[in-house]
Amino acid sequence: MADMVRLSLTEVHELATQNLLHYGASKEQARSVADTVTDAERDDCKSHGLFRIPGFCASLKSGKVSGFAIPVVEDLAPAVVKVDAQNGFAPLALEVGAEPLADKARSQGIAALAVTNSYHFSALWPEVERLTKQGLIAFAFVSAKSFVAPAGGIEPLYGTNPMAFGWPRGNSPDIIFDQASSASARGEIQLHERDGLTIPDGWAIDKDGNPTNDPTAALEGAQLPFGGHKGAAIAMMVELLAGSLVGDVLSFEATEQDEPDGGPSSGGEFMIAIDPERCGNNSSLAHSEKLFARILGQKGTRLPSERRYRARQHTTEAGITIVQSLYDDLQIDA
Amino acid sequence: MADMVRLSLTEVHELATQNLLHYGASKEQARSVADTVTDAERDDCKSHGLFRIPGFCASLKSGKVSGFAIPVVEDLAPAVVKVDAQNGFAPLALEVGAEPLADKARSQGIAALAVTNSYHFSALWPEVERLTKQGLIAFAFVSAKSFVAPAGGIEPLYGTNPMAFGWPRGNSPDIIFDQASSASARGEIQLHERDGLTIPDGWAIDKDGNPTNDPTAALEGAQLPFGGHKGAAIAMMVELLAGSLVGDVLSFEATEQDEPDGGPSSGGEFMIAIDPERCGNNSSLAHSEKLFARILGQKGTRLPSERRYRARQHTTEAGITIVQSLYDDLQIDA
Repeated sequence: MADMVRLSLTEVHELATQNLLHYGASKEQARSVADTVTDAERDDCKSHGLFRIPGFCASLKSGKVSGFAIPVVEDLAPAVVKVDAQNGFAPLALEVGAEPLADKARSQGIAALAVTNSYHFSALWPEVERLTKQGLIAFAFVSAKSFVAPAGGIEPLYGTNPMAFGWPRGNSPDIIFDQASSASARGEIQLHERDGLTIPDGWAIDKDGNPTNDPTAALEGAQLPFGGHKGAAIAMMVELLAGSLVGDVLSFEATEQDEPDGGPSSGGEFMIAIDPERCGNNSSLAHSEKLFARILGQKGTRLPSERRYRARQHTTEAGITIVQSLYDDLQIDA
Repeated sequence: MADMVRLSLTEVHELATQNLLHYGASKEQARSVADTVTDAERDDCKSHGLFRIPGFCASLKSGKVSGFAIPVVEDLAPAVVKVDAQNGFAPLALEVGAEPLADKARSQGIAALAVTNSYHFSALWPEVERLTKQGLIAFAFVSAKSFVAPAGGIEPLYGTNPMAFGWPRGNSPDIIFDQASSASARGEIQLHERDGLTIPDGWAIDKDGNPTNDPTAALEGAQLPFGGHKGAAIAMMVELLAGSLVGDVLSFEATEQDEPDGGPSSGGEFMIAIDPERCGNNSSLAHSEKLFARILGQKGTRLPSERRYRARQHTTEAGITIVQSLYDDLQIDA
């Protein structure tokens, strides 16, 4: 067992912020990335937590990401707003876009946000939760570098392309799912390789297209979409929305264009927000509670995001732990 | 091999229309159902073709569906339109809602359509294609009766809850996928039972929650979502949008309230339309062709809906065939 270091959430935020500032991020860029990293640690979503800070910093150091970028908001249509992240990190662009998106959703009933020229390393549920907390329904779509084979094919083409959906609940924690359209996260395969473990069936194929349980062969081959051709269709949809529609790169273009400095690659994001009060049913949220009660009425079930909320209750008091080696990496040389 | 009867698409339409008129549908209701049934036969989507007409007629006969319903359009918000189907069949309500939905998508950038009080037995791609043909991106969501267990549970709760997505291509056939959030269609399990075949792993569990390959045990138990908990999350999302959001029933409510006359159950539908010209990239459709070329550049791949378009090329000339027994059932007694 690796040595662990315990940190409060305030310390997590400070550690992230100091590193980002040190490598040249503006106060606003540093704060917004630190916010999402802290949210991830708080919700025990380690793969988007402090573990990502060295990558963010590498991209500041290489100059690939503009640490002083100020996102530019553009009103495209009564129900569509665009935020050009100006080659900065995505969290600040998403933060800046949230208010006009929410305003438009409330005034028009449904609205969309197109984010471009952003560098993304984050989970999607933070930007979805920002909207559900205001009583709005929200979708988010993000593509990434090519890792996943299309249905029937054997070469990486799609990103792990997550899609998130959130439904507000008022007094109860909002329902939010945030899921890759690949069978597994890429990081999970990397962890299996590191630990000398085989990977489950259905996660990947080797470079000749044969099913494999060997993580190294999987990383050299292609990941598989979840649920066969249906998951591949979702991956394609995400790609079209977060790439072509908003005017940004497809996953294979991100792979071809990226400067491999250990940081995130450039890309777009697409979000939709809906005001449930404007769609014909003023009691839609109360009605949806009947569904949640029926789900939980069956033994062995849980609601999406339950684990995150449970972690949150604990970590807000008790803080979180990270491995000593990561903690050491995050110490800035004097 | 069963005896087959060959029909032109015009004959399909007439046969459907005559039956619906005979059992009390108005000309408009009959024509719109016949349109979608003919589209399904044309695209070799048999499970939504003439095979469904006896069920539609049973619901007219029982009085469950109002054959003379005139859908009522209501403007809910600048970007949201509602159509109350007035207990008629869904196709006419969707047809009536398509124009205001498309107009709103073009003027606002993104728009939504909420359909309620409709009886649905149809595939979703016809209403999606109606929008992609006009250069719009579209989503459709429909719930149904309870057949699918939630993640971790063993009792039917969700419908097979399809979700469809369409992307316009201008001169090439539009990309449309239309997929159940269950691992298989219910009809496929019924066909396996009829033919004395076992069903594949992952389709269903028996009533005690054990995985089963026995179609009869599967029909008494519960179907499984595609791709495990990720497909279940999609099923839940569809349920919330097509039920609670639009002000209609959840799948378990449809099951509880339905009069089992062999026809469709009552429910809602939710659609989203997006104008790609209003989202920040005027060449989004041209750009997306690069993705389609990369998909097809890999051996063994095909684009969603390719099979339907191929069938369409053939059946428009050659007509379609149905089994003699169905043809006999559709002969109206003088």
